[in-house]
Amino acid sequence: MAKRVSCGLDFVSPADITNALQIATESKYDFAALPIAHPRHKRDFSGNSQARRLTAFTRADLILNSSDWSTLIVGKISPHVDLDHEDKLLRQESEKVLEQELSFAGHLGLPAVLVPLRKNNTNFARFLHNKVLSSPLNQARYHVWLHLPMISPKIEASQFERDVDEEEVDDTWHWWNNFRITANFEKKLSLALELTADLPDAEDIDRWLGEPIKCLVVPTHLFMTNKKGFPVLPKSHQVAIRQFLRQKTQILITGAQRHQHYKHYQQYIEHLWQVGYESDPVMQFAQGYEDFLQFPLQPLMDNLESQTYEVFEKDPVKYTEYQRAMYLAILDKVPLEEKDTKVITLMVVGAGRGPLVRAALTAAEKADRRIRVYAVEKNPNAIVTLQCLADEEWGDRVTIVSCDMRDWDAPEKADILVSELLGSFGDNELSPECLDGAQKFLKDDGISIPSSYTSFLGPIQSSKLFNEVRSCRERDKPYFTSFEMSYVVHFRNRTELADPQALFTFTHPNREMPIDNSRYEVRHFPIKCDSMLHGFAGYFETVLYKDVMLSINPATHSPGMFSWFPVLFPIQNPISLKKGDVLEIHFWRCVNRTHVWYEWCVTKPLGSAIHNPLGRSHNIGL
Amino acid sequence: MAKRVSCGLDFVSPADITNALQIATESKYDFAALPIAHPRHKRDFSGNSQARRLTAFTRADLILNSSDWSTLIVGKISPHVDLDHEDKLLRQESEKVLEQELSFAGHLGLPAVLVPLRKNNTNFARFLHNKVLSSPLNQARYHVWLHLPMISPKIEASQFERDVDEEEVDDTWHWWNNFRITANFEKKLSLALELTADLPDAEDIDRWLGEPIKCLVVPTHLFMTNKKGFPVLPKSHQVAIRQFLRQKTQILITGAQRHQHYKHYQQYIEHLWQVGYESDPVMQFAQGYEDFLQFPLQPLMDNLESQTYEVFEKDPVKYTEYQRAMYLAILDKVPLEEKDTKVITLMVVGAGRGPLVRAALTAAEKADRRIRVYAVEKNPNAIVTLQCLADEEWGDRVTIVSCDMRDWDAPEKADILVSELLGSFGDNELSPECLDGAQKFLKDDGISIPSSYTSFLGPIQSSKLFNEVRSCRERDKPYFTSFEMSYVVHFRNRTELADPQALFTFTHPNREMPIDNSRYEVRHFPIKCDSMLHGFAGYFETVLYKDVMLSINPATHSPGMFSWFPVLFPIQNPISLKKGDVLEIHFWRCVNRTHVWYEWCVTKPLGSAIHNPLGRSHNIGL
Repeated sequence: MAKRVSCGLDFVSPADITNALQIATESKYDFAALPIAHPRHKRDFSGNSQARRLTAFTRADLILNSSDWSTLIVGKISPHVDLDHEDKLLRQESEKVLEQELSFAGHLGLPAVLVPLRKNNTNFARFLHNKVLSSPLNQARYHVWLHLPMISPKIEASQFERDVDEEEVDDTWHWWNNFRITANFEKKLSLALELTADLPDAEDIDRWLGEPIKCLVVPTHLFMTNKKGFPVLPKSHQVAIRQFLRQKTQILITGAQRHQHYKHYQQYIEHLWQVGYESDPVMQFAQGYEDFLQFPLQPLMDNLESQTYEVFEKDPVKYTEYQRAMYLAILDKVPLEEKDTKVITLMVVGAGRGPLVRAALTAAEKADRRIRVYAVEKNPNAIVTLQCLADEEWGDRVTIVSCDMRDWDAPEKADILVSELLGSFGDNELSPECLDGAQKFLKDDGISIPSSYTSFLGPIQSSKLFNEVRSCRERDKPYFTSFEMSYVVHFRNRTELADPQALFTFTHPNREMPIDNSRYEVRHFPIKCDSMLHGFAGYFETVLYKDVMLSINPATHSPGMFSWFPVLFPIQNPISLKKGDVLEIHFWRCVNRTHVWYEWCVTKPLGSAIHNPLGRSHNIGL
Repeated sequence: MAKRVSCGLDFVSPADITNALQIATESKYDFAALPIAHPRHKRDFSGNSQARRLTAFTRADLILNSSDWSTLIVGKISPHVDLDHEDKLLRQESEKVLEQELSFAGHLGLPAVLVPLRKNNTNFARFLHNKVLSSPLNQARYHVWLHLPMISPKIEASQFERDVDEEEVDDTWHWWNNFRITANFEKKLSLALELTADLPDAEDIDRWLGEPIKCLVVPTHLFMTNKKGFPVLPKSHQVAIRQFLRQKTQILITGAQRHQHYKHYQQYIEHLWQVGYESDPVMQFAQGYEDFLQFPLQPLMDNLESQTYEVFEKDPVKYTEYQRAMYLAILDKVPLEEKDTKVITLMVVGAGRGPLVRAALTAAEKADRRIRVYAVEKNPNAIVTLQCLADEEWGDRVTIVSCDMRDWDAPEKADILVSELLGSFGDNELSPECLDGAQKFLKDDGISIPSSYTSFLGPIQSSKLFNEVRSCRERDKPYFTSFEMSYVVHFRNRTELADPQALFTFTHPNREMPIDNSRYEVRHFPIKCDSMLHGFAGYFETVLYKDVMLSINPATHSPGMFSWFPVLFPIQNPISLKKGDVLEIHFWRCVNRTHVWYEWCVTKPLGSAIHNPLGRSHNIGL
């Protein structure tokens, strides 16, 4: 089986860099972390600038070839660097040291630089942010890994006598949060999080999982020794590491060699990954799509492509459940005593390339009842496929209708109306508007499958997604545009800040007079932990018929179903939240003659401007 | 004396609009407030949309001519309109009523519309924001005046049994604050604030003074009756009204006529203005510049124009104080016994058109001492004026040097070095860098005037200035640019959220080795009241010599001096603050070989991104 984990070995102060690299590669590590400044060279920045000795602070770049520097070495900044020291001279010396070492890292073409993150870091954040910003586009642009412990040494030392006020100050997540706010969430600045002997509780680990952690630092002193003399980690640490490995986090082993050989640590980490890797159809299907922003489909305005149909027809769960719902509905419509005399009418509106037609026929066979099927589809390309299936397979049980369901003048009324018009947020592909139009050819006692659907909304934190949205900015559009869109995303690097709640519900057939599909709801979310709000995740649940449901809401997700990824509603300015805050959000579904769109704003504990007013950045065409 | 106050009269339910307008104009009011919908027409929005009676809900537009509609009438929205009602039907009816009435206000071309603001107003805020946004550029665009009381009826009724939790909810400032956040601080949405019988304390009134209040509503029941039968207000209300009148707020008299004639209320308000108007040179000088953003001068890179010199030479305070400082310095340099033998050298660097040269000569005459003056100036246009003054007036006491002070090879060293290089923020026109260069021709025991200067910084709230900065956006520049500039502004419509604090100090001559004019300071401001942070006001104080000072810091402002307006450092995303919060700000003065710039960020209670990193949006050329 292929090697999956990228694992590095940290050297505190190697006398010989080629030797260190040899140890790392022979032990099957993927990279080595090495100090940028040579430990034996003490630099002197005091006095006036002409006196600086700039030449000999480190090894020459000729020791390794440039491809080794750029793939095998992570540079470490001198640990005494402190840009927020109270003493101005020490602070300025730190700036010069950091400047010099980063400059040399750039010169070498290192892929990443490891820098210790301290409690006070505003000046440091500014410096790094500006450094990354000033780096010209085509130069070697290292990532900065901010190295900090999962629990601060102070909190670890005083588990039983914590001061509440101190807690925030010593919560290392706050160190990071302060840093990134000042550094404007710059995506080249990410984290190297060090596992500690004590682990924080599950919610705090969850929060770290939503942060841009590029590397998990694992000290060798955390390893115990098993009967055979090999290093093993406590169960709790195994669980934590597996969670990070699922996020594709790299591992860096640090500290003295406390067991026979350095290679055993790498082998153990690799073992954790292999054991933890479970085959999961959703995970496989989503491979490569993690945290990738997709624009929602507009199937009403655009015609879907063949490949899109193909992908969605493969869902192992969705059509089975539709079939079960139709089976129950058919049985309810035709009592046993009429099974040979009564023929009911089932219409599939938006039939695509026919998966629901096929499921309907199968359901009728299983129920031992007789049905007549109409397959209505507006996409002329899909009609070709349907007609072919009718001719070759379905025969006269199925009538193909090439027409927009809203315009169709049906020759008779249906007993059962079946559709699959739901988007990731339920109503966001305009299922309500389509079915309201189609129900004119549903009998008064007819059944709609689905019979109802509800969208769900939950607040999330994710620097990763925030940066993805920010970088979606299009040249000619105003800067806020990308924050007023919704996106379909397979979430990975994010934290849920509260449980999702039901938002908008639609029921079919809709006998309201007049029908009003606009909605306006306010929701309140109790926040689980100190955090940054970056937006909202949207999901849906639908009742197909009676107890037959489909769901992408995490709490009730249909196992194995991959047809829908969740939807993301971002907010433009991240909002700081405290544990226990009640977040209030207002959400509108707006409808006019030609379009449907959403608007949203946060009102508590802090307000945001209204997003997507008048659908200016995003709307869905009717 | 000319009429100064714009004063309107409110009619609750006039039977006859022409008659009402006649009453208002005969009583010398400038405008009348009238309901948009005719009170006798009850509208019916129930049922389907075809049934709406859209024709007769109000008077025809033919009653007045269009110029009267657009200058004399403020339209009032029906008071029962409530877009945040819990009942969906009532809410939707309110939306329709508001839509219809605003549409008619636009049709009539009214200058403003008065709308009641309630406690819950998120949907209302969204609706008005979108309405203003959707209004095409060249159409009649009414301002919306949100009408709300200074103290909510509930708080007024229960002064002695207030619940702390309730306080915020019933603080009408919070109603407004919630509204404007959702409405994205849109500048067409402003306030009509109603004076209440009880007034809030001075700090709360201060906060209102920083809000965009277009109109102060004064109910007639607040008026008492004096011995002659005329209406008068209590002292506290007089004070409050005068504060608003200084901001050019309009007045709207509302309520029944409780005295002989409506005109007496207008006369009384006019009287308050006339009595309150004091002649003040700064106020006169600043007329028309209130809250107007100016770009700071760059006198090092650009040459000043003649008109600029002219304006600043008129300052009645600045040169008097410089002269006093020079007088004291000259006396210190030449003891009485040497008054006829010793000639000292005084150099004016950046002499402009010579006001400091003239003040030096006068100071020497008053001190009865002998001086030799060098006037160094880099602007060749100003040199023309200086040479002319030397030839015609000063004679050989003054040597004119046409040269940048940093490049000048002086023939001798000076006893006294005089300059006026300070900007509104002290060092922001690069006085430190210039004087560091010039001090090479100052004797070791020489005196610099000024001898030191300190910048001051204080947090402010101002929707007005926030909007001014936002609308400064230039087409080809990134959206954040205008928020990363500093501006010179004569403040009016803003609230100070904490007392300003000293920030950066520079002393001359500067004997530091090596000289370092970069600065980095952190300041903590205890916040006075619940508020929105929009940016920071910058000021300076300078010690010219010994006890002779100049200051534009509000606490120590030199009376009558108008040469400097304060400076504004905005922040891009307004930050919500609570009374008692400690606001932490980090401020840097950065220096490289060619430029000086400032960077800033807020870190507590909430963080902001670093502003102006690397001086990307604004810097000052050396």
